[in-house]
Formats: sequence, C-alpha cells, structure tokens
Amino acid sequence: MLSTGPASARACAYASPGLSQPKSCLPAAAISLRCVPMTNRVVNFNAGPSGLPLAALERAQKEFLDFQGTGMSIMEHSHRGKDYEAVHNEAIALMTELLGVPDTHQVLLLQGGASHQFAMLPMNLRTDEHAGDYVITGAWSQKAFEEAKIVGKPAVAADTSVEGKFSRVPKQAELKLSPNAPYVHITSNNTIFGTQFFDFPTTGNVPLIADMSSDILWRPTDVSKFGMIYAGAQKNIGPSGVTVVIMRKDLIEKSRKDIPKVLRYSTHAKENSLYNTAPTFAIYMVRNVLAVLKEQGGLPAIEKQNRKKGEILYAAIDGSGGYYKCPVEKDSRSVMNVVFRLPSEAQEDKFVSEAKKAGMVGLKGHRSVGGIRVSMYNAVSVDGVQKLVGFMDSFKKANG
Amino acid sequence: MLSTGPASARACAYASPGLSQPKSCLPAAAISLRCVPMTNRVVNFNAGPSGLPLAALERAQKEFLDFQGTGMSIMEHSHRGKDYEAVHNEAIALMTELLGVPDTHQVLLLQGGASHQFAMLPMNLRTDEHAGDYVITGAWSQKAFEEAKIVGKPAVAADTSVEGKFSRVPKQAELKLSPNAPYVHITSNNTIFGTQFFDFPTTGNVPLIADMSSDILWRPTDVSKFGMIYAGAQKNIGPSGVTVVIMRKDLIEKSRKDIPKVLRYSTHAKENSLYNTAPTFAIYMVRNVLAVLKEQGGLPAIEKQNRKKGEILYAAIDGSGGYYKCPVEKDSRSVMNVVFRLPSEAQEDKFVSEAKKAGMVGLKGHRSVGGIRVSMYNAVSVDGVQKLVGFMDSFKKANG
Repeated sequence: MLSTGPASARACAYASPGLSQPKSCLPAAAISLRCVPMTNRVVNFNAGPSGLPLAALERAQKEFLDFQGTGMSIMEHSHRGKDYEAVHNEAIALMTELLGVPDTHQVLLLQGGASHQFAMLPMNLRTDEHAGDYVITGAWSQKAFEEAKIVGKPAVAADTSVEGKFSRVPKQAELKLSPNAPYVHITSNNTIFGTQFFDFPTTGNVPLIADMSSDILWRPTDVSKFGMIYAGAQKNIGPSGVTVVIMRKDLIEKSRKDIPKVLRYSTHAKENSLYNTAPTFAIYMVRNVLAVLKEQGGLPAIEKQNRKKGEILYAAIDGSGGYYKCPVEKDSRSVMNVVFRLPSEAQEDKFVSEAKKAGMVGLKGHRSVGGIRVSMYNAVSVDGVQKLVGFMDSFKKANG
Repeated sequence: MLSTGPASARACAYASPGLSQPKSCLPAAAISLRCVPMTNRVVNFNAGPSGLPLAALERAQKEFLDFQGTGMSIMEHSHRGKDYEAVHNEAIALMTELLGVPDTHQVLLLQGGASHQFAMLPMNLRTDEHAGDYVITGAWSQKAFEEAKIVGKPAVAADTSVEGKFSRVPKQAELKLSPNAPYVHITSNNTIFGTQFFDFPTTGNVPLIADMSSDILWRPTDVSKFGMIYAGAQKNIGPSGVTVVIMRKDLIEKSRKDIPKVLRYSTHAKENSLYNTAPTFAIYMVRNVLAVLKEQGGLPAIEKQNRKKGEILYAAIDGSGGYYKCPVEKDSRSVMNVVFRLPSEAQEDKFVSEAKKAGMVGLKGHRSVGGIRVSMYNAVSVDGVQKLVGFMDSFKKANG
C-alpha cells in the first residue's frame, strides 16, 4: 500500500537539525549534506502522545504539500470530497481488518479522547436505574467512574486500590456484578501503574466495555466479546485528536436519544463518522500507521514483537539483583507500560537524565507515582528496548 | 518567528507527483528533478477544511520528523513536555495578540468543532428557565438552536428564513430579545447562504455569543463586546480537529457544574486547555498559521486583503450583465463565502468542471442550495481571486 518504503524515504529526509537547511536549489556539491540517513531520531518511550512508525511519518512528510497530485495537502481537502473520503474509509477498513471487527460492530472515529468517552458512554447507555458497573484498577478507570456518577448511578464492581495500590488487576471471582447494569467497564491497560488485563472478565449478558487507549492493537483481540472498545489514538494508533470507538450495532441503536445530537453514538454511526467535520489529518495519520502495521504482518506479528520487548525488559529488571524493582504482581505486568523503581529518587533522576543524553526519552514515571516508566507501544522496536537494557546494565554497574 | 521563509522551502519541496521520487541517495545529475519550484498547488476555494498558508505548511513539512532538534515529530511529543507546551502557549499568545483579547477573557483550545459547541454552550450557560436567544440566519444557527432545544428552553430572537430564504442578516430593530436570556447567539458568517454580520447586535446586559467558525480573524474584532466567540479551526485558523473558544472569565466561572467534567468550560480553563490530551499537531498547525498572519501584518493587513478580494469578485458578478447573479442583499454580502448562480444548472456544472481543469477547486455550492460558492478565507490570495475573475469572464464569453 505504501508508495515508497521507509528505507528509501529515510535516505533522503533532512539529515540533522545541525546541518544548515538549503536556502535555494542546491548545487551538486551540496547533495551529500541532504542525502545522509536520518540518524538523529531518538528512542521514544513517551507514555502518550508517543512515537509513531517512521514509515507512517515519512509518507505524510513526502506528500504534505500535495496529496496524490491534487495540489493540496490532505488537510486542505474537504471532508466531503472523494479524496479525503477514500482515506477515511481506508482507515476504518484497516482497523476492521486488523482487529477482525465482525459485522455486528461498527468502527467510529470521534474526537475528545478517552476523557470524552468517560462522559459520552454513560450519557448514551445508562438506564434510569443504573449507569454501569466499574472495575477500578487505576487513575483512568477512577476518572471514568467519576464522570458516570455525574451522569447517573454507576456501581463499583471491584477496586484494586484498597490493597496494594493498584499493583494488579482483579480476578473474576472478585467482581461484584449487577445483573441490571447496562454495561461493565474496564480499563484494559493501566499506564500509570503498569498493569494489564490478559484475560477479560466474563460478564454474561451484560456488555463488557473496555477503555483500550493504551493497548488497543497490541495483539489480536476477539472484538465480539465486547459491547464497546474505545481508545484515544495517541499511543498505538496515531496522533492525538482522534478517538476510535468500536461498538456493537444493537447498543448503538438502543443508546439514548434524550441527549444532544452530537453526543449520541447513533448520530455518528449513521453518518459514517462524517456528521460534522472530522479531524481529517489525524485520521489520515491513523490510516498511515495502520497501513504500516498491516505491512509488518498484522497483529500476530505485532504481538510477537511486543511479547519479546516485555520479556527482555522484565528479565533485566528481575535479573538486576534488586537494583531495579517492579512493584507489579507478575501475572498483571503490562507489556505496554513497564514501571520500576531504583534505590533512591536521586538515582531515578540521574537515570532519566543520562538515558536522555544517550538518546532515550520519556522514561520519567507519572508525576502521581514517581519512579521510572517505560512505555513500549507498537512503534518502539525490539532494538530500542535492547538499547535501554544495555543502558540499564551500565547504569547499575556505575551507580549500584 | 519563522525559522525559514516560504521561498527557500518552496524551492526544495518535492516538485510534482508526476516526477519519480528518489529511491535512494540521488546522484548529482538527478538534483534538478527535486529542486524545482512547487508549481502544482491549486487555488483552493474549499468551504472548509480549506487552504492554509503555504509557509505554515512548509514549516511543518520541514520539521515533520524532527521538531527543533528533539529527534521526534511534534506529534510524538508529550503534551505535558516543555517542547509541546511552548507551542501550545505560543498558539494562545498569538491568538490573544492578533485579536487583542482583553484580560477579561480566556482563550481555550478544545475539540469537536462548532457542532460540539452547539451542545456544550447551552449545557454550560443555560438557566433552568432559559437556554439562550438564537438569531437564525442559516443552517448552522438552526443546528445550534436545535441542540439547545434538547438541553433546555431556548428562544428565537429572529429568523431570516421566513422571507427571502436567508438572503440577509437581521437588523437590530427586528430582534426580539428576552431580558432573562443567559445569552444571545449569532452565527457571524453563513457559509451556505453567503451572508455576514458587519455590525453586531447590541444586547445590553445579556452576553452576545458568536459562532465565528467561518470568519474569525478576517478583520480586527472588539472581543470585549462578546461573552464568547467560538470557531472550528478549519477555515481561517488551521486544520480541522481543534476549536477555539474565547470566553469571558466571569461566564466561565458561573457556568454549570452539574454536567460531566470534560464538558465544562471551567475544567479546560483551569488547566490551560491541557486537562486531557490536546490535539497537539492540530494546535501546532494553528500556531504556524497564526505566525504567518502576524508576519503578514496582522488583522489590519488581512482585512485589507479580504476587502479587496470581495470587491473584485462582487464587481465581476454585478458587472456580468446578469450572467452571474448573487441572491444576497448587498449589505449582508459575505466577503468570506460568495454565492452566485449561472443561468442553468448545466452551466454551473460546466463552470465547476472547467475551473477545476484550470487549477481552481472547491467552487460547487453547498448541496442543499446548489449554485456556485467561492470561499475566500485568509489563505486565498488576491491573485487567486483575480485568476478566478479572469476565468469567469472567459467562461461567460464562451457560454453566455
């Protein structure tokens, strides 16, 4: 699908901010300055917005002023024109293909991020008696629950903060599920505490709804098990500014009509997410990212890579003789966000700062918990994690 | 503010989709293929998303893979990091400077477009008795009113559909204003019907609120006269996916707290529009566009250019001996969106199609009204309008 591969484009990207940019057409002698490989990209462990596949960025850069010979940037196209609509539909088709979204579900592309879904979900699906059972496993599910409380009457199905400070996700037997709940809500991966659901709760006839903002597309997922999946794009899917919602069609249909039209899932579903002006460039970037994931072999190949990254990093932590310590229980350890501590905050600060000098950024833990956090979303390569593990070993020898 | 001017970047942009892209480092002989001036950009009369200043796009293209030597695209930066925050704050500062936003008001950068504001505004500012007086001058104000009806009890202050199919905006004397309304809502420019407010209604102690999506920044504006101004970015400000709200601080403070947190203006105001992950790349593009407007001399210079474009085009229509006909009353004629008809729909179709062949796109009228629509937002140059007027003259001679 890509018109040119990453290698060829990379070879001719601007070489480095240190090199002077051409002021006019370059004389032949200057060519070597521009056509050196890009070597200044850092290893990006940001928690989100986070790194994107280089090939997806390069494709966008190349056609930034002139999308497919139309004489306009894709962001200058009408959202009602055929050129943009093809991109829009390709993004939806790729998402459908990669995740194997069944005909019972529809993919929507909305705005506002997961925080907006925290409100929109209970507004659409609450009943007068109940606004959903919430499984509280960290700051994000707590926020989702707080919004639902403003909108209606949600309940807590489990809360792993009470013992162990969110160091694990709950087991099935711990869940207190209400038979009359309109849905059960989970956060599939917890960026701040470094925990992740590997098996999803069984909820009987009550639809399971997952905020997958930080781990959607990390592996093949059986979408049919979910009433709805939602995700802000800015980790595994694309840039911030677009939210993917994958929703069971019967839930879309039965969602409430006594709320503003723009806040109804049914409005956006009916118009193929073009009810109002879509965030066209963000969706274009999502298309580019998904095309790269497909080219890389789809989700089975992506999962293999993600599992490998997790194994390498957790092995380095557990094999450090206690210098690096991960507070998360083993069967809840996230392969997307790995959190660990060093013997002191001073050493943690030094770790972050020296890693940055070595070309690895985004390692500071969330301000609410401190420590180190390594976010290893799909765009982070195995090589990037190997580099980090090498650095961890040297750092420990020098400071341990 | 721009690190490099448009000319230098333009000289080295990819020349044309027709030319083969380099597959690896180019030999010296191939350099002329890449370093020819960009000549294939069309004149973009799209109604929105619409054309953006070339210099703003080129700046983004150049640093797309490596923002200011950080080794990351701006869209890969954390929204909580200092690099992005500087861009975010610069966008707000430029908006404040260009419009002369007084200390009594705050600039917010939100998501969801004007359609989202249609709901958010009455949710925040309605009283139990009243959800605002609405001046209905076209499809967008009608939509705003419909959302307010779902949320509360709005009233119609005027409706110019009843006579003349929205061919003008109402005069002050026609407005039926409720003394107890929480606000009066207008749409300052009507993209579909080609009308515009040049003088704003006087509303006494009731705050005036304007949807300026399609004409914000077209001229200097006294912001102090408004309780709130809002605008989807995708016409005069940047790409779609970000919404500018400029709101009086006392209205922010007194807005309702019984709605979801993410839908409260006060939440976003308190966090400098970083309560949740901002649409960072869209805001970066807004920064780039506003920096260009400032460089061009700010809003007095922009207004001069916009007035000139309007004069040229309306003169061509009125001087065509009735071949081109504008249905809008003269003192309501928009300088942003100019609508006109030809003698038949067949000629209109031919007009749109031949203009496209001549490098001018986006001229088809809105599907609900037909005809021709010329959207001349800030990024459309006087030269572009001259080119259109030349085409109109030739077309009339050949077909009239």
